[in-house]
Amino acid sequence: MKRAMRPAENGKLLFKQVYDYVISRIERQEWKAHHKLPSIRLLAQELRVHRLTVYRAYQMLKQNGKVYVKEKSGYYVCPSDPEQTLPEYGEHSENRPIAASGFLKNDLSEIHQVPVIYQFSQALIDPNLLPNLFLSEYVKKVFDSYPKLLGTYSTVQGDEELRDVLTRYMVRQLRVQLTASEMLITTGGQQAIDLLSRIFIRPMDAILVERPTYSAALDIFRQQGARLLPVDIYPDGYDLENLELLMKQYKPRLFYMNPTFHNPTGYTVPSAQRKQLVELAERYRCLIIEDDAFHDMYFDKPPPMPLFAYDTEGWVVYLRSFSKYIAPGLRICSVIGRRFVIEPLITAKSLADNGTPCVNQKIFLHYFGSERLQQHLEKLRIALQVRRDIMEQELTAAGWSWVTPQGGLNLWLKLPDSISLEKFFVESIRQSVSFVPGVICDPLREMHSWIRLSYSFVNEALLREGTRRLVDIAKRYK
Amino acid sequence: MKRAMRPAENGKLLFKQVYDYVISRIERQEWKAHHKLPSIRLLAQELRVHRLTVYRAYQMLKQNGKVYVKEKSGYYVCPSDPEQTLPEYGEHSENRPIAASGFLKNDLSEIHQVPVIYQFSQALIDPNLLPNLFLSEYVKKVFDSYPKLLGTYSTVQGDEELRDVLTRYMVRQLRVQLTASEMLITTGGQQAIDLLSRIFIRPMDAILVERPTYSAALDIFRQQGARLLPVDIYPDGYDLENLELLMKQYKPRLFYMNPTFHNPTGYTVPSAQRKQLVELAERYRCLIIEDDAFHDMYFDKPPPMPLFAYDTEGWVVYLRSFSKYIAPGLRICSVIGRRFVIEPLITAKSLADNGTPCVNQKIFLHYFGSERLQQHLEKLRIALQVRRDIMEQELTAAGWSWVTPQGGLNLWLKLPDSISLEKFFVESIRQSVSFVPGVICDPLREMHSWIRLSYSFVNEALLREGTRRLVDIAKRYK
Repeated sequence: MKRAMRPAENGKLLFKQVYDYVISRIERQEWKAHHKLPSIRLLAQELRVHRLTVYRAYQMLKQNGKVYVKEKSGYYVCPSDPEQTLPEYGEHSENRPIAASGFLKNDLSEIHQVPVIYQFSQALIDPNLLPNLFLSEYVKKVFDSYPKLLGTYSTVQGDEELRDVLTRYMVRQLRVQLTASEMLITTGGQQAIDLLSRIFIRPMDAILVERPTYSAALDIFRQQGARLLPVDIYPDGYDLENLELLMKQYKPRLFYMNPTFHNPTGYTVPSAQRKQLVELAERYRCLIIEDDAFHDMYFDKPPPMPLFAYDTEGWVVYLRSFSKYIAPGLRICSVIGRRFVIEPLITAKSLADNGTPCVNQKIFLHYFGSERLQQHLEKLRIALQVRRDIMEQELTAAGWSWVTPQGGLNLWLKLPDSISLEKFFVESIRQSVSFVPGVICDPLREMHSWIRLSYSFVNEALLREGTRRLVDIAKRYK
Repeated sequence: MKRAMRPAENGKLLFKQVYDYVISRIERQEWKAHHKLPSIRLLAQELRVHRLTVYRAYQMLKQNGKVYVKEKSGYYVCPSDPEQTLPEYGEHSENRPIAASGFLKNDLSEIHQVPVIYQFSQALIDPNLLPNLFLSEYVKKVFDSYPKLLGTYSTVQGDEELRDVLTRYMVRQLRVQLTASEMLITTGGQQAIDLLSRIFIRPMDAILVERPTYSAALDIFRQQGARLLPVDIYPDGYDLENLELLMKQYKPRLFYMNPTFHNPTGYTVPSAQRKQLVELAERYRCLIIEDDAFHDMYFDKPPPMPLFAYDTEGWVVYLRSFSKYIAPGLRICSVIGRRFVIEPLITAKSLADNGTPCVNQKIFLHYFGSERLQQHLEKLRIALQVRRDIMEQELTAAGWSWVTPQGGLNLWLKLPDSISLEKFFVESIRQSVSFVPGVICDPLREMHSWIRLSYSFVNEALLREGTRRLVDIAKRYK
């Protein structure tokens, strides 16, 4: 599965990387003399390479006197020769710095790098659905209003004017008490997730994540060393009893959720559960990170109130991203929380990049405040609903099962077990259709017969053709 | 020193924070039953609060049965009562999520939040020195060329067109072999430092840093859990023998340096040392992170070639930031390195924010390619030199000592030991003059009689007045 997603790899390079990885851990004394190396199977899994690759690396390590073998037990680190630990200049010139983080990866980003015609893997809005000409004109006005904009840094927390406007909007929409000091602007929702995870997760901390969920969030949490506890999401929400048991038993630090037009499933956690979820969070002191990236992307009726609206004690951090459907090129997200969350977040943001660029915030501010925005959103909802309908029509022939989403950008589909998803994926990419294999959205990496199709990015004609093509390919892999 | 820099703090809040900090470590089983708490002195130092604050928190923990005291030994964690570990809802409503990262702070950012008239603490270019009108016109043209710009995400690695242009520029200027695949675009230089430190530093790794150095970089490295090994920087570079000893003894993972118009000192490491430094890096397998944020901000003659130009084995990562002097509002930095550095960096960037916004890159691209840029730089150099001269003139009355910088934005001054820097700083802020206390630039936090003054941000009149005022204040604190 994994290897199929990567660009063609040079076997030699991979082998060398595994070799270097082991060497670096030995040299840095993380694996001392006579320490047992991980089994070939385990390291292959961890580094996501083929077992043969690890086997070759271990053989070379043995040849070079770095490790020794105990019959029927495994590979062990050789005691180091003090003369050899620091080779002379030139001798080890093929050595190179190696990334310290073992968990550094981003599956989704790798898939997106593959160029295809029928782009169903990116949950992005078709740029043709955005009011581009209008936006360009707007930008010019913004530069007339702020002639020194390109010379100015933003404050770390975010442009004050923008925070004021967004705060007033949230107060109106969510009927909550809120001040501009309880908001931070980030460069897109992903940065918000990353900064929060840096602040609130320490290695080996247990955290709750939905199953399935946004795969890049999983990669962020893994990078931070979190232990992931999956919480299944169903068309009617979570199993709250089971959730409470998890909270009781593992005392998780946080619960990352996307309860509204959930990615990838499109499900929405019902109103009735939302208040209870906030109570559970308070009772078990588990911070809820509520990612609300698709809030305004509903079809028939607006979604229920966010959990944040029920929170009085500060256990919900609310991520309201506008990147997706207003102006993706600007990358604006607002993080809303009580001061004890926002304060460390400001520091983390100051260290991470010193604040989101001022230009982006001012352009967004003016567009957000314009009447045009509401008109745009209304048109966009209709356009997306039409696209969803087209994709669903074309999929009926396939006989797969799914729940029609009431908002968002994705269909989440269960394929018959008889289809080999790995072959199906490879062949689809070959035929220029991309999708997200469900397995990368699963914290347990087991959802092998699910896929996510985004209907938001390509136009109606391509959507129809691409979906047909996908159904045809699947038929051949039964 | 530290407390003076912070906004007024509520003593009660701080006390509660320390209390919560200990509770959270106990609850998370990091400190188990009968574990000894850190001494009051140590924890006060670590959390940067007054010892009395820690004392009060420990007393309260004792009262609440969370810790017990052993005479002449210290405080110990009480065995937990299983009935009590999970209090009922409502009971602990004053509890709150607490940031997991003990090292999260940014001194410099706190100083910058204080509004003053005579702004000598921000090493930023006066927005009036930038070609603002020209830039605004330029932006409009960019939006005419790319009407869908606001609807487009950039690739994670950075806009291809921009990387092509910058790569060709570097090849010409540095006479190195380089392709666009060996470059990543970040949102400012600070993000580059942060991403590199996330990839290459694991907790307790030894790394080399200049003494003094950019304080936010120190905060980033501390947040990552690095052990900082200081390397003194002198007007004629480093003590290479001592450096080699450090490399030999501690095998540091990396050396973060800013060898050209160094911040805060303004020193430039001479050509002769640069080749040797690259050789040392190779020999001891220590990655050099060469931060070159002021490269084009020279006064009389261009600086020597960067270390990167001498590197053939890939042990130098080159950060060339254009944020400071071209268009700070855009926040563009290029990170250049060999593929084995750039590849994990792309993944880290994809997790951190999915790529620098496209808008910023395209605007920068077009300005960078314009003739106007060279003219701007020439004017800017003269304006900065004039400002440096003014500040130096006004400082002669003070009798402090410094080395005239040949580029960059800062003066680094040694004050007489007789001046109490803490009082001096507080009084200066009160009189609306800000500067950076040298102690925060020092990895050892000992440079109490040094300060950094930036001459780049305020106009000539304010520069003169503010410097005079500073000298006057200092006189009174002798």
